[in-house]
Amino acid sequence: MSEEQKKKVLIVVTHGPEDLDRTYAPLFMASIAASMEYDAQVFYMIKGPLLLSKKWQEEERKKGGNPFIHFFDMAKDNGVKMYVCVQSLKDMCHMNENEVVDGVEIVGGSTLIDLLFDADRALFF
Amino acid sequence: MSEEQKKKVLIVVTHGPEDLDRTYAPLFMASIAASMEYDAQVFYMIKGPLLLSKKWQEEERKKGGNPFIHFFDMAKDNGVKMYVCVQSLKDMCHMNENEVVDGVEIVGGSTLIDLLFDADRALFF
Amino acid sequence: MSEEQKKKVLIVVTHGPEDLDRTYAPLFMASIAASMEYDAQVFYMIKGPLLLSKKWQEEERKKGGNPFIHFFDMAKDNGVKMYVCVQSLKDMCHMNENEVVDGVEIVGGSTLIDLLFDADRALFF
Repeated sequence: MSEEQKKKVLIVVTHGPEDLDRTYAPLFMASIAASMEYDAQVFYMIKGPLLLSKKWQEEERKKGGNPFIHFFDMAKDNGVKMYVCVQSLKDMCHMNENEVVDGVEIVGGSTLIDLLFDADRALFF
Repeated sequence: MSEEQKKKVLIVVTHGPEDLDRTYAPLFMASIAASMEYDAQVFYMIKGPLLLSKKWQEEERKKGGNPFIHFFDMAKDNGVKMYVCVQSLKDMCHMNENEVVDGVEIVGGSTLIDLLFDADRALFF
Repeated sequence: MSEEQKKKVLIVVTHGPEDLDRTYAPLFMASIAASMEYDAQVFYMIKGPLLLSKKWQEEERKKGGNPFIHFFDMAKDNGVKMYVCVQSLKDMCHMNENEVVDGVEIVGGSTLIDLLFDADRALFF
């Protein structure tokens, strides 16, 4: 099916490492949606950007066994597109743009509204 | 109104007994929606499946005064359909299918995507 | 653009002062949506009504520096319409109607279903 014809699902992740269970279930749903031929997008905000820290991901990969890392990699392999809210990144998570792992688009809060209206359905976690 | 004509609301419950306030408000909304002639469906995931444990519900019924139990019974009486995510049930809540109270359909995560696209609107808690 | 032509976004706030980060991001999104010429509405339920306490807001204004207060005022200035669920207000937050700040409409839970079906899109926090 061409990208044009696919229906879109937006998945919003607001939790971070402080409550991992609320972070990998959404990524699992994103992979499922992608495998069902939907165009799946994940938007990280509030505490979500902490999951995208290069340093944190590196440490978790070394330790092993972190389910978020497992489902994050799977979602990327399944073509899930990822966005992070720059205001949450900087003002709430005290990170800068260089600290974000590759493959995540850094966008302003208004992009959430655009993605929401562009999507056919949305899920919130 | 026939079932066919009813508009559908999907209500997703991600919290469990650890934060009861986030579990009975959604069930109350499901009953309200059903009374407004919507087809109301509740989907339990992440910590939500813990609310569906036979053992837990039995204990709470004995103790009495648990608002989730009150609104759960009311929702069932109002014809609200209930689903639980089998991956959350097993992998996150460490329960098995036999431990789930009657009247709840045990489904895979992909059913959430199907229900979401089939519903006219959704609420997330 | 006339009010009639505007697309509508509903934003549901379920957290209160116990988790401030989950309360001001939604208000910031409401202001962004309003500035993008959407009709933005915020609905407070579960712990959200605690943010609308006259006493609490007064104390926070005196102390200064509370980001919720900042984005609450900004949202009101941007024409964001606010609603609070009376059942959450009374039964969960133990407040009465007189304790709610001006400019917030006190409504029953069924109004959430009405607003949800009237809105083009919704966000949940």
